[in-house]
Amino acid sequence: MSQVTRTDARDRLVAAAVESFASKGFHGTTTRDIASAAGMSPAALYVHHRSKEDLLHLISRTGHELTLRLVQEGVASADEPVGRLVAVVRGFVVHHARNHTSARIVNYELAALSPAHLEEIAGLRRAIEQELRDVVEDGVRLGAFTTSNPRMTALALLSLGIDVARWFRDEGEWDPEDVAAHYCELALNMVGAISR
Amino acid sequence: MSQVTRTDARDRLVAAAVESFASKGFHGTTTRDIASAAGMSPAALYVHHRSKEDLLHLISRTGHELTLRLVQEGVASADEPVGRLVAVVRGFVVHHARNHTSARIVNYELAALSPAHLEEIAGLRRAIEQELRDVVEDGVRLGAFTTSNPRMTALALLSLGIDVARWFRDEGEWDPEDVAAHYCELALNMVGAISR
Repeated sequence: MSQVTRTDARDRLVAAAVESFASKGFHGTTTRDIASAAGMSPAALYVHHRSKEDLLHLISRTGHELTLRLVQEGVASADEPVGRLVAVVRGFVVHHARNHTSARIVNYELAALSPAHLEEIAGLRRAIEQELRDVVEDGVRLGAFTTSNPRMTALALLSLGIDVARWFRDEGEWDPEDVAAHYCELALNMVGAISR
Repeated sequence: MSQVTRTDARDRLVAAAVESFASKGFHGTTTRDIASAAGMSPAALYVHHRSKEDLLHLISRTGHELTLRLVQEGVASADEPVGRLVAVVRGFVVHHARNHTSARIVNYELAALSPAHLEEIAGLRRAIEQELRDVVEDGVRLGAFTTSNPRMTALALLSLGIDVARWFRDEGEWDPEDVAAHYCELALNMVGAISR
């Protein structure tokens, strides 16, 4: 089997796992469902992935690493709190709207991960939370934001972004950029940004 | 079987279904799992509930009716926009924090409902959304709120409240009332409430 074919089969199985987990949940999905959605035999799945949980871990790690990178890029894109918050919220919301199917699995199937995998993913989640918290706490320290509870406000900003994956619909009236633009306004209000 | 025992068995099955759906998802749960968690035989389950979907529908309808009632009570509790918004957000957040396990099933397993049941539940969800939207739109009309997009802001308020069920932990540092109090402050900021 050539390298290209091998990578293609692996990716097809990941895409099939995303669809299967999204429609029937992790526990309701069999490896046979995933293999069949990818047009492969159940035995062929095991050539590429050790188990159903291995596929979930791969989807989860990829999603969390991408989210962490987006948040870090948002932070690096500006040198003051308002610009940072807007960049982080925009990137986070657009990602969770565009990739709402995989983002639901990434955020709602954590309990199905093995203890070792969950520990790794929890570390990525803490890193994402810490970036958001730093943006809000720095803003308060620099006098740009006035929220009375920076930590809970940072958690609420993250929560609002994650929940976009639950309610966003491709066929809805708003596109990901519309949602992101209004969510930036809401985020500035939530932190109590001083009008400039 | 006496009426009391009958009601007790029905309720025990509902509680067992909540626990089973929460830990393994609707599709990953069998009627045998539910019966066994309730200390009953699979056959006994069918004396009280027609199917696993029937149990999900009951949990979903109960949760949505309770949420709608809480929101309506919040609206009725005050005669001006700020008081209404605070009452609605407080009731919604406390409910979703206290009952986070059942609230996750209520909000994340909609796709597993039968088409007829989904239609009924979707009607309840529209009624809840409409109450929130009226609170925000009335506030803007009366000059108490200044948000540029009342409909998306109302959706974001609902989204923030629903997602409490995902992240809230009984053993966490904040109790439901702590979260509700800060979320009322965030909600007033989100709608752009004019300081009084």
